Amino acid sequence: MSTFGKAIEINLFGESHGSTIGIVINNFPQGIALDLDLIRDSLLKRRPKSALSTSRQEQDNFEIVSGYFNGLTTGAPLTFLIPNKDTNSSDYSPNILRPSHADYTAREKYNNFQDYRGGGHFSGRLTAPIVILGAISAQLLAKKGIIVGSHIASIKDAKDKEFSDFEPTIELLETLNSSQFPVLDDLKSKVFEDIILSAKNDKDSVGGTTETMIIGLSPGYGEPFFDSIESILSHLLFSIPSIKGIEFGKGFDITKLYGSEANDSFYIQNDKIETKTNNSGGIQGGISNGMPITFKVAIKPTASIGKTQNTVDITEMKEVQLNLKGRHDPSIVHRVVHVINAITSYAILELIIRKEGILWTN
Amino acid sequence: MSTFGKAIEINLFGESHGSTIGIVINNFPQGIALDLDLIRDSLLKRRPKSALSTSRQEQDNFEIVSGYFNGLTTGAPLTFLIPNKDTNSSDYSPNILRPSHADYTAREKYNNFQDYRGGGHFSGRLTAPIVILGAISAQLLAKKGIIVGSHIASIKDAKDKEFSDFEPTIELLETLNSSQFPVLDDLKSKVFEDIILSAKNDKDSVGGTTETMIIGLSPGYGEPFFDSIESILSHLLFSIPSIKGIEFGKGFDITKLYGSEANDSFYIQNDKIETKTNNSGGIQGGISNGMPITFKVAIKPTASIGKTQNTVDITEMKEVQLNLKGRHDPSIVHRVVHVINAITSYAILELIIRKEGILWTN
Amino acid sequence: MSTFGKAIEINLFGESHGSTIGIVINNFPQGIALDLDLIRDSLLKRRPKSALSTSRQEQDNFEIVSGYFNGLTTGAPLTFLIPNKDTNSSDYSPNILRPSHADYTAREKYNNFQDYRGGGHFSGRLTAPIVILGAISAQLLAKKGIIVGSHIASIKDAKDKEFSDFEPTIELLETLNSSQFPVLDDLKSKVFEDIILSAKNDKDSVGGTTETMIIGLSPGYGEPFFDSIESILSHLLFSIPSIKGIEFGKGFDITKLYGSEANDSFYIQNDKIETKTNNSGGIQGGISNGMPITFKVAIKPTASIGKTQNTVDITEMKEVQLNLKGRHDPSIVHRVVHVINAITSYAILELIIRKEGILWTN
Amino acid sequence: MSTFGKAIEINLFGESHGSTIGIVINNFPQGIALDLDLIRDSLLKRRPKSALSTSRQEQDNFEIVSGYFNGLTTGAPLTFLIPNKDTNSSDYSPNILRPSHADYTAREKYNNFQDYRGGGHFSGRLTAPIVILGAISAQLLAKKGIIVGSHIASIKDAKDKEFSDFEPTIELLETLNSSQFPVLDDLKSKVFEDIILSAKNDKDSVGGTTETMIIGLSPGYGEPFFDSIESILSHLLFSIPSIKGIEFGKGFDITKLYGSEANDSFYIQNDKIETKTNNSGGIQGGISNGMPITFKVAIKPTASIGKTQNTVDITEMKEVQLNLKGRHDPSIVHRVVHVINAITSYAILELIIRKEGILWTN
Repeated sequence: MSTFGKAIEINLFGESHGSTIGIVINNFPQGIALDLDLIRDSLLKRRPKSALSTSRQEQDNFEIVSGYFNGLTTGAPLTFLIPNKDTNSSDYSPNILRPSHADYTAREKYNNFQDYRGGGHFSGRLTAPIVILGAISAQLLAKKGIIVGSHIASIKDAKDKEFSDFEPTIELLETLNSSQFPVLDDLKSKVFEDIILSAKNDKDSVGGTTETMIIGLSPGYGEPFFDSIESILSHLLFSIPSIKGIEFGKGFDITKLYGSEANDSFYIQNDKIETKTNNSGGIQGGISNGMPITFKVAIKPTASIGKTQNTVDITEMKEVQLNLKGRHDPSIVHRVVHVINAITSYAILELIIRKEGILWTN
Repeated sequence: MSTFGKAIEINLFGESHGSTIGIVINNFPQGIALDLDLIRDSLLKRRPKSALSTSRQEQDNFEIVSGYFNGLTTGAPLTFLIPNKDTNSSDYSPNILRPSHADYTAREKYNNFQDYRGGGHFSGRLTAPIVILGAISAQLLAKKGIIVGSHIASIKDAKDKEFSDFEPTIELLETLNSSQFPVLDDLKSKVFEDIILSAKNDKDSVGGTTETMIIGLSPGYGEPFFDSIESILSHLLFSIPSIKGIEFGKGFDITKLYGSEANDSFYIQNDKIETKTNNSGGIQGGISNGMPITFKVAIKPTASIGKTQNTVDITEMKEVQLNLKGRHDPSIVHRVVHVINAITSYAILELIIRKEGILWTN
Repeated sequence: MSTFGKAIEINLFGESHGSTIGIVINNFPQGIALDLDLIRDSLLKRRPKSALSTSRQEQDNFEIVSGYFNGLTTGAPLTFLIPNKDTNSSDYSPNILRPSHADYTAREKYNNFQDYRGGGHFSGRLTAPIVILGAISAQLLAKKGIIVGSHIASIKDAKDKEFSDFEPTIELLETLNSSQFPVLDDLKSKVFEDIILSAKNDKDSVGGTTETMIIGLSPGYGEPFFDSIESILSHLLFSIPSIKGIEFGKGFDITKLYGSEANDSFYIQNDKIETKTNNSGGIQGGISNGMPITFKVAIKPTASIGKTQNTVDITEMKEVQLNLKGRHDPSIVHRVVHVINAITSYAILELIIRKEGILWTN
Repeated sequence: MSTFGKAIEINLFGESHGSTIGIVINNFPQGIALDLDLIRDSLLKRRPKSALSTSRQEQDNFEIVSGYFNGLTTGAPLTFLIPNKDTNSSDYSPNILRPSHADYTAREKYNNFQDYRGGGHFSGRLTAPIVILGAISAQLLAKKGIIVGSHIASIKDAKDKEFSDFEPTIELLETLNSSQFPVLDDLKSKVFEDIILSAKNDKDSVGGTTETMIIGLSPGYGEPFFDSIESILSHLLFSIPSIKGIEFGKGFDITKLYGSEANDSFYIQNDKIETKTNNSGGIQGGISNGMPITFKVAIKPTASIGKTQNTVDITEMKEVQLNLKGRHDPSIVHRVVHVINAITSYAILELIIRKEGILWTN
């Protein structure tokens, strides 16, 4: 389903090469003057750019067509539309299945009635409205002192520093959020870009990982049994195309520790209860414990590559070779990292509003 | 929320030390003679056992109190109750926060009104009704030739073989499913058990990873944008206490490959479309592609350990030391692996029924 | 579906002649000392009684098996179980379709796998857990100064007075709520009972109408577009077996007025905005306007009657005559009126919590 | 909430005087060539027209912006947009509360942030997208031999004939559906129109009732306990502005019968089980029994009238007189009757797809 949420119900629609994509956001608190610059800035960071990306250029000029009146949200469904402008459908065939794309699976799901152009409803293009959702969610979170930030933790084999090498501060996350290519270790930008450009040169692509931190969420958010913070976040994050793995706190590495090493001891710091370590990533029993929430995400190499690939012509049911021309991203990690921030901000807002209701003081 | 599902809506209830735990299952297909032996057998595998587990012994004698008539499901809500018998609440205090348990977070979420005994509603005890749900889901999946199976992929640093070392066959998964301690490499059972017993000796605990495979699911299941197979599975899996990471197919390792290495080329095999590799874990664009679905899960070391731990007495707001006596599992990986199978079976059934409706031929 | 609610999600289960019926209530506010006497008293009023009812006698001894700890709700799923004791299934046949019962329709819906005894999951017996839900909802509403009350507005052709003949006061509704057979005009009790007893004498049955009033709900509750107060209330009320019509405020009679007569003029009363008339029944645009909410409900004559009826033996596909022996209610209006109060209290609480969140001060 | 549905989830958005209104329809079956003429024709019937209506003229030129490809639905979210053209906001004030409109209640619900122009999100204008939804639902129902039709049963005190005076045939309903002003008794058109025009002359308005029939729905649709056909239909119908009452089958009049008169006896007709009478309106236990489904709806007189009214200026908190100029419908019954058909068609399709899944043969 293209809907999500119990408190803030969202409905995403559109296809890569349709006329318009958009999102309807239900139950967003009323009386909020949306920060339109923040939305524009967020869309800009998600957009393809420079030599690192596809040359498809979408202006992402959004329009708010409902739920916004005299510069304030009304509480009624808030709808954003984004027109698709720079579409070029000539590179897409309904017959030649692009490997590791949704061509085959969409065809099977929809009995061959799917819009196959540019991945249709499965396209990463659909993350543009999510970035809008994220920007307006982040605006509300900021009022509560909550901030979400991420960095590119690795590109192929090359690794950035980790959040655990730093003190978690709002300033650190703000710095990352202001960057188009957020890394903790500035020296790594160049290394990462070189890897990406080298792959581009070979008509190939690379993937990577990201690390996200949430600061300022009080203890007590998330719900047992099925709506743990991990459940809600992973549900939403795995809807972003290309994501193949998620781990919270120490994640897979925690399995190599003894319980006595893995457990996060409580202690008292400035009259507040904190934990000495944060191997749990700020979540215990699925509920926030007041420490920073941290998780890592694995993003596969872009499936669209210029190199010759073996595949199948499904109409003729014969094996063929495929040479995608078109405009490809040699890596999307630096674009997806902004979508991860966006969907994470929405997830946290959803959990807050479930508990506290939609009443909100501007 | 303790509810999940749009097609088969489930509602889980109960606490570790309450009188009764249970589950209400809505929209389960009618006319099914439930395999009660399979349920009993599944509960037996989840139960603590032998030297590897806690000594709390629950008989898990379940009762079906609605939705079952003359030995067949009726289509009305199907309710299973399990009485709690062997509870011992003396080891639990509302004040002394057990590290890496939900004691603190539950208290914050529920304003100190939570049932703190044995973890209350956050307890792994709640996975018993899920195992029942899994058994009856697996029974329906089997009628469609679908089988879910898992093995213990690692305990601490020691690793089992991987599914990729074998041909995916129904027999392989059936063999695993018949085992209380499923491993692919028989030699590893002893190694794993030694690690667990050694940790037990030290009043400590260990974690591990599991690997799951689903064979027989046709292409075309799962839903964009938000209800990808990965989204539904991860949502449900992260509701199981102790799970901290999930990766599909090659998961985090896929980020180290070039796109040309990571992409799964299509070819034709026996007039069917298959992929040469299965780095995607049987899922593309969030939808099944007909190849086996594979994923790995990270399970943290059991939080309950006998070793002395530093923590906080929240009533007196002072730091204290904690010595948990009680009955602890030095590892729960071999128990959780059966819960993973159960919740996975339900997830797949949910996705099938969303597409095909609740009509079902016995 | 046997589930309802977005804020307080409920799940009803059980059959008329099964071992246990019950309800799971999710997201009920924590820290509430439930008024168990109010629950018992409410169940007592719903129960068959005296000469006016069936002689099936259920003690309705409920048990709280989860979500309640040390005499307070915990916030985790709150589960009530009620055992069925006095069942007598001999009067029920899967073949002979009882006219105007759900025998035929349940059979068609569930492909003949339904539990047909006593109406199975369709039975009015299922309203017992709803009465519990209503009692605990009313307890919370009372803390906000909101009260729901109803009277029997008619039995067959005989009419009680109407709420519009009185001042709406909390005392008026409390008096009605304390009565097993609530009427506004005391003289009508005898008339109504005579009609019912006379029908009973003839092995026949009668129906009637009820009128409900809600006092104390502030303006601004209910949601456009689909979750108007009328939508939520009618959805829930039409789930009660035997209800065939609902009208709010002046209802069908408003269609006979001119707009200038029907419109409720605003004026100022004690610095508050009120309306001169209340033809809208306290609801405008689906949202409460602060005036008392009023509605009427039509309850059909009990379908179970002793008189000989023409019907069909569906197994042999031949027409037959049916003489129901058993124990029938000559009228259920005086029992259903309490269920209407219960489900209305829940509906209002659901709408309040959607807006204000689950935080609640005891 | 402006969302509805579990099988076909819909999300309605927009305001009376916003730039665009629309609807997102999730899970609509794929591969359907939508009958765009039927949509246009349905919108035309809902539109204001002739002397009987407001002079606001909206062309209702809709655009399909997603989920439709090469002239067929794709299965992805299907989105319709309708631009608002002929808006005139000068007649609307945020301070002067129009009696029996949502001005006051919307203000209270949304803390005075609502878009008050033309009723905002509460406007009958929002029924235009619902008419589109109804048209495409009716198209699918027709493939299964199901048809929904309605007539104006009364305007003020004047009554049309009733469905019970006729044989239920598809032709009868088709004739009604082809009419802008559907009545069973042709002579009544003139009478009804005279009443409406006379009210218009007096700057006043009138209401009325409608009667709806559904032919062709097989037995076995609808769901206990909470999703009876009555529950789903009434929930949706009460979301249409101006509706104040609903009754199924004989409705309120059934309360005046004995059970022996009210019960619908089964008999065998052409090897099928039918009922002699249809007092239940085709629904027993909330489930369809194969007989025509019938219900009546009460529509209040239009709240907008030209006559002087007493009301309140909420900013200055003083009583004032109000003279609405603008363009008013002296009656909307002949417009709402088409919206009733539309939302009923959607309701029935929703119930069918819940049971049978989204697979659909074109």
